Amino acid sequence: MPLIADTPSPPYYAEIFTSIRSAGDNGYHDMAQKLIAAVVNQPGFLGVEFAREGVGLTISYWESLEAIENWREHMKHAEARQMGRDKWYLGFKVRICKVERDYDFFKS
Amino acid sequence: MPLIADTPSPPYYAEIFTSIRSAGDNGYHDMAQKLIAAVVNQPGFLGVEFAREGVGLTISYWESLEAIENWREHMKHAEARQMGRDKWYLGFKVRICKVERDYDFFKS
Repeated sequence: MPLIADTPSPPYYAEIFTSIRSAGDNGYHDMAQKLIAAVVNQPGFLGVEFAREGVGLTISYWESLEAIENWREHMKHAEARQMGRDKWYLGFKVRICKVERDYDFFKS
Repeated sequence: MPLIADTPSPPYYAEIFTSIRSAGDNGYHDMAQKLIAAVVNQPGFLGVEFAREGVGLTISYWESLEAIENWREHMKHAEARQMGRDKWYLGFKVRICKVERDYDFFKS
């Protein structure tokens, strides 16, 4: 996947997941690998951008709010949500956004 | 500033700036320090979250689209925009979003 997600023209949706990890792995990396493998096949998935430097920022892009909701259901079954609260994070914030406008610049 | 921005209840706006740096500093860190000092005093500024790990993600939060537009004008005067294209970035993408919903979790 490209580092900068190759999203279509707006409007589309973004889920911004901002997190602070707790110490230790506790199965986090295994689950993260599984979730990445699953999300790319999820209907309505447009791309994802990620960086962690003190704080972790994961921004996933989606065709619709319904697609975000379906992904949330998938994670429930994967038990990722509960593990996140119990083991992986000291805190997180999720923001559901409508992308209204975008522009970019790439050196040729 | 907190690592996870302490934003008010939605709706509000987010500017997602996703970037890939070019090699060398070329005045980038000086300008970044100046911009951080300036943005916290900008009308309508609500907070910012940042991480770089291969890709750089800067998410700034704003009360309104007008506040984002005013900040863009400020950066023009600071010449940050042109330097970004000429010297600092191989590529970037900017997405203007309306935050419609949020929720969070913090360990007590």
